[in-house]
Amino acid sequence: MTNTPLDDPNILRRSNFLLPKGTIYMDGNSLGPSSLASNKATQDVLNNQWEQDLIKSWNVHSWIDLPKKVGSKIAPILGAAPDQVIACDSISVNLFKLLSAGLKINDERKIIVSEQKNFPTDLYIAQGLSELLGKDKCELKQVEKHEIEDALNDEVAILMLTHVDFRTGEMLPMERITKLAHQHGVLVLWDLAHSAGAVPLELDRWNVDFAVGCGYKYLNGGPGSPAFMYVSKRHLRHLKQPLTGWMGHASPFSFEPEYSPAEGIEKALCGTPPILSFAALDGALNAFEGLDMMQVRAQSNSLKLHFLATMTEILQTNPDLKLVTPEDEERQGSQLSFSHPHSYAIAQALIDKQIIVDFRAPDILRLGFTPLYLSHAEVDKAAKTLRNIVQDGSYLNAKYQTRNKVT
Amino acid sequence: MTNTPLDDPNILRRSNFLLPKGTIYMDGNSLGPSSLASNKATQDVLNNQWEQDLIKSWNVHSWIDLPKKVGSKIAPILGAAPDQVIACDSISVNLFKLLSAGLKINDERKIIVSEQKNFPTDLYIAQGLSELLGKDKCELKQVEKHEIEDALNDEVAILMLTHVDFRTGEMLPMERITKLAHQHGVLVLWDLAHSAGAVPLELDRWNVDFAVGCGYKYLNGGPGSPAFMYVSKRHLRHLKQPLTGWMGHASPFSFEPEYSPAEGIEKALCGTPPILSFAALDGALNAFEGLDMMQVRAQSNSLKLHFLATMTEILQTNPDLKLVTPEDEERQGSQLSFSHPHSYAIAQALIDKQIIVDFRAPDILRLGFTPLYLSHAEVDKAAKTLRNIVQDGSYLNAKYQTRNKVT
Repeated sequence: MTNTPLDDPNILRRSNFLLPKGTIYMDGNSLGPSSLASNKATQDVLNNQWEQDLIKSWNVHSWIDLPKKVGSKIAPILGAAPDQVIACDSISVNLFKLLSAGLKINDERKIIVSEQKNFPTDLYIAQGLSELLGKDKCELKQVEKHEIEDALNDEVAILMLTHVDFRTGEMLPMERITKLAHQHGVLVLWDLAHSAGAVPLELDRWNVDFAVGCGYKYLNGGPGSPAFMYVSKRHLRHLKQPLTGWMGHASPFSFEPEYSPAEGIEKALCGTPPILSFAALDGALNAFEGLDMMQVRAQSNSLKLHFLATMTEILQTNPDLKLVTPEDEERQGSQLSFSHPHSYAIAQALIDKQIIVDFRAPDILRLGFTPLYLSHAEVDKAAKTLRNIVQDGSYLNAKYQTRNKVT
Repeated sequence: MTNTPLDDPNILRRSNFLLPKGTIYMDGNSLGPSSLASNKATQDVLNNQWEQDLIKSWNVHSWIDLPKKVGSKIAPILGAAPDQVIACDSISVNLFKLLSAGLKINDERKIIVSEQKNFPTDLYIAQGLSELLGKDKCELKQVEKHEIEDALNDEVAILMLTHVDFRTGEMLPMERITKLAHQHGVLVLWDLAHSAGAVPLELDRWNVDFAVGCGYKYLNGGPGSPAFMYVSKRHLRHLKQPLTGWMGHASPFSFEPEYSPAEGIEKALCGTPPILSFAALDGALNAFEGLDMMQVRAQSNSLKLHFLATMTEILQTNPDLKLVTPEDEERQGSQLSFSHPHSYAIAQALIDKQIIVDFRAPDILRLGFTPLYLSHAEVDKAAKTLRNIVQDGSYLNAKYQTRNKVT
């Protein structure tokens, strides 16, 4: 039995988060919890700004600047110098913008390479764009993870990958893959849904071209929180994205009949931003101010290591339970995934004991290790509970079998 | 002097709305006010659902059904039978979906006709689509209002118009224009930003093909509230829209690698919906339950008429002030617009007296007449104040001249 390691008080800020008493929340990889700052910012928009100042709030509370402001708070978390990140729309919509823009830049090429097991919306958006433009203008090639490098050649316009796999928690070597792609003149678009706020990122230093990510997982911005996008400075001036809504215009309030894009990253904006959802994300991001992502990573790794130590024996003795996340820490995101024929029921049994985890089809149990609000003691309890549930077969109880609509 | 008419107590529900004391709010055409129901629904998501039930809320609080649920609340306001309306994204993004879809349906044609003075984002989105597809596949033709009918011919794929002009408040005859367009095999896409919740609509009966609209004006759903879209039942089965995000998939939680659209209006969805902003709109729409839009219209007309009666004399004697909204009630939306060389300063002077109106470049003063929370007595006061300001020149005060960023 391992001793429970100490929590880093610079990182664990549990009292800032609004979590129900007794709940061990290991699903921050799916939906981060609320926080005092996020709640306060949202209440302020709801009860003061909208209610009292009404339309004037666009100016007096700078609603109009929220996409840029929130983007500038996210930038340091991504290792991005200012003016390359903006918050807007959803990951799906932003992928459409950037895939279209990338094809315009690499306009002699038409192939988008992605991974067969990428998060589906990434694939669907590329399929939708291909359907719209025609296969002669845009073609999606879906390959296995181990085939990615071989798929890179001078016919490929864009390589679109997710940094941390949503099912397995496997993290790809972003710097190395980006470099390889560039050797073939391929632009790289990274989906950071499962990495922003979870693992250290150096988009600028790694020469990444484009990235997208969401606000509602490790950034704790609330359900369906606005997404963000990163466009490297070197592409910004020439970037042409097709969702040319008024918020991306150089002068939106001149109401000119011809579109003329804003100079900076604002050209990525489309319609009017959902301010209540923006406020929640804006507040949530305060937790990251001055935070050293290397320290966050160290604590996340320590939590995972501690969890796995408790699971070692059962993983060796119970052939039904398998760790599907790579054992090498360097290849892990901030999540551990296990497969088991009864993963769905096991997840329900854990949730029943206030240990919140989730399930992904067909047989994956996912656990998020989020050191801003998760302690080693909690992880210890979660591991022991999971071990017991798997051993005693209590997940076979009929009440854990009913499938929810969202699973 | 006209007597102040009585307010209809079935329509005026001021106590449901959260308006600051003493404020006469005549800018519901730009941003509707908060309401008890909207505030409560948002608080519930913020303080109970997200905070307490976390990820489970997608199921237990049916977050996943919000786009459809909100759409079904909006449908009767539009005169739409169920299952043709869904709430999602922004007007701009939804226009892109529907213009693309319309070009696929009318695939022998490439021209989109719109009006030069349409709300700019409508034009910009068509320009962006044209730039993406190439002029040989999609071409926007911008005409003057009086040229619309002549522009309809069998080369036109889609006619895209805004029902009520954002500057002038002029309302177009939707039924007649739709019929004319259909005679030429042209699909019609209506932007209802300034009509949904303001004037009676009969999209089904008028054979409209597509429509979009926003939640934050007359529907009072909060700043940047989700938009909505309508797709006529006859187009739904064959509709192909290009923003094929996971929420539009037939089975989003199967995480299949190939996109397969949902059967119904859900196929219009793209990414994860912003739940806090959805909650605010969901609550706000309770105000429309059982509301007779003909009665709303009657009260709105009565408010406008009363306002204009007070303005008659000054409009006749002061050549600087002009009514730019058509005098014919049938051609008015729920807004009156005036032009004046000093409209911006006049708007600021009114706002200074707690009469909230807005300005649109170059010289338009806009006033919204929203009978759910605006009484005849308030409109009376607003008209007299406007008249006095224009007469006494107090708007020339230096403090009313500084331009805000959002105007």
